Amino acid sequence: MGSTGSISRNFKIRIMVKDKITVVKIGGSVVDDRLALQSFIKSFAALEGRLVLVHGGGKQATSLAARLQIPQQMIDGRRVTDEATLSLVTMVYAGLNNKRLVALLQAHDVNAIGLSGPDANIIRAHKRRHPTIDYGYAGDIKQVDALQLMRLLQQGLTPVIAPITHDGAGQLLNTNADSVAAAVATGLAPVGAVQLIYCFEKAGVLKNTEDETSVIDILRPEDMEAMRLSGLIHTGMLPKLEQAFDARQKGVHKVSIGKASELAGLVHQIKGTSIL
Amino acid sequence: MGSTGSISRNFKIRIMVKDKITVVKIGGSVVDDRLALQSFIKSFAALEGRLVLVHGGGKQATSLAARLQIPQQMIDGRRVTDEATLSLVTMVYAGLNNKRLVALLQAHDVNAIGLSGPDANIIRAHKRRHPTIDYGYAGDIKQVDALQLMRLLQQGLTPVIAPITHDGAGQLLNTNADSVAAAVATGLAPVGAVQLIYCFEKAGVLKNTEDETSVIDILRPEDMEAMRLSGLIHTGMLPKLEQAFDARQKGVHKVSIGKASELAGLVHQIKGTSIL
Repeated sequence: MGSTGSISRNFKIRIMVKDKITVVKIGGSVVDDRLALQSFIKSFAALEGRLVLVHGGGKQATSLAARLQIPQQMIDGRRVTDEATLSLVTMVYAGLNNKRLVALLQAHDVNAIGLSGPDANIIRAHKRRHPTIDYGYAGDIKQVDALQLMRLLQQGLTPVIAPITHDGAGQLLNTNADSVAAAVATGLAPVGAVQLIYCFEKAGVLKNTEDETSVIDILRPEDMEAMRLSGLIHTGMLPKLEQAFDARQKGVHKVSIGKASELAGLVHQIKGTSIL
Repeated sequence: MGSTGSISRNFKIRIMVKDKITVVKIGGSVVDDRLALQSFIKSFAALEGRLVLVHGGGKQATSLAARLQIPQQMIDGRRVTDEATLSLVTMVYAGLNNKRLVALLQAHDVNAIGLSGPDANIIRAHKRRHPTIDYGYAGDIKQVDALQLMRLLQQGLTPVIAPITHDGAGQLLNTNADSVAAAVATGLAPVGAVQLIYCFEKAGVLKNTEDETSVIDILRPEDMEAMRLSGLIHTGMLPKLEQAFDARQKGVHKVSIGKASELAGLVHQIKGTSIL
């Protein structure tokens, strides 16, 4: 009987230990800087457990738009996406940035697979509905196929996800990369112990945006409202933080925000801002 | 004993019946034409068995190069690929064309997954070596990971492959889409009953390039030399035909060449040119 008990205890432990999955989001500025990118790829490749990389590319898209003389309009940090801009971001995000990252990861023995929303139908979205603003072909996420992502992860593949989604009826949509990272992390939360890491240009959420040493180590949901009211937090940071708290609420184990060059520290939550 | 015999006969039959896999290659002109594309996608989605789609996009790349004022140089139908051109073709092939096709296939209930060579390391290439011409970042295929492709096919996924490959050391390479299709078909030949279909702008290989009704129904290897000597065959067709014969020799069951709008007829070899 003792032996049966120990088997059943082991079994319980087994089904309770979830796969560790780390979802890292990087911005276009990392992809653009050869040295920063090389060093990021090295530290990403050294992470343990299953990995997902989500990337942006807004900076490159903006510069290509200027060369092609496609006027760009941003409203609250979101790109208004007409047809020409949709082609442009699809080229830059799903094409250039995605394949560059995948090729570099392959060179570091990470079996990366570049994906956008329509690929294996991993992310469905709908055209953004807004009472007054027409964002064009901007997409808000409806559904992440976490089982499909898990099947790829279990094959030893590392998804590298570009923020281009689709509506299921043949239309591509331009989607915010922070939202993609949050939705992927949240989608995987029921099947894995998921850590979500937002890398951006600052060392973390700052008390004073002018002072890089003023990183707030830990942010609790109750701090959020106070910060919002204080006006200390800059507007670009607000949606990122909202998504970070939302992901924690929806079962993502750990969420950190900080610099791509401090990735290992972010994973161990000794760098950047940890979201509680 | 009779029963055992019949089981073993069934078993033999089972292991001898290979999966039917159809590899279709389309050119950029199909992707560019909304109506032609819609109708192609419909007939592709209706095909039986496992499917792979390989696409080009040279036409779109050439027009974007003009808009970006990146000078283009073609030698024997191959694009000389400097760094700016490599970025350009990666954007157009792996980004825009690939994701457009995938989204349209998803809308037709085909669970497509867009891939380039570095994705899951499916196609490795090396920089083209040529005694006198520097083709830049043009790649010749070294290896196709047919087992990885098969794993995706067995998951019910339909790979949609862009002709961007990698060298395994982080470098992307621009690769001829006809060669990609032939290498993928040849790579899958040991595990499947593979049919390779090249779609292009003509109804098949023509006796007289000015006369669309002069389609040659069947081409045998011995016809090839005669045609080459006759000068009747136009130079752009020669590499396609060489690859077609090569694929047949390397175990691809059926190879056809013809119009994208006649896909079903090409599959049944009642349209276009069948390569024996």
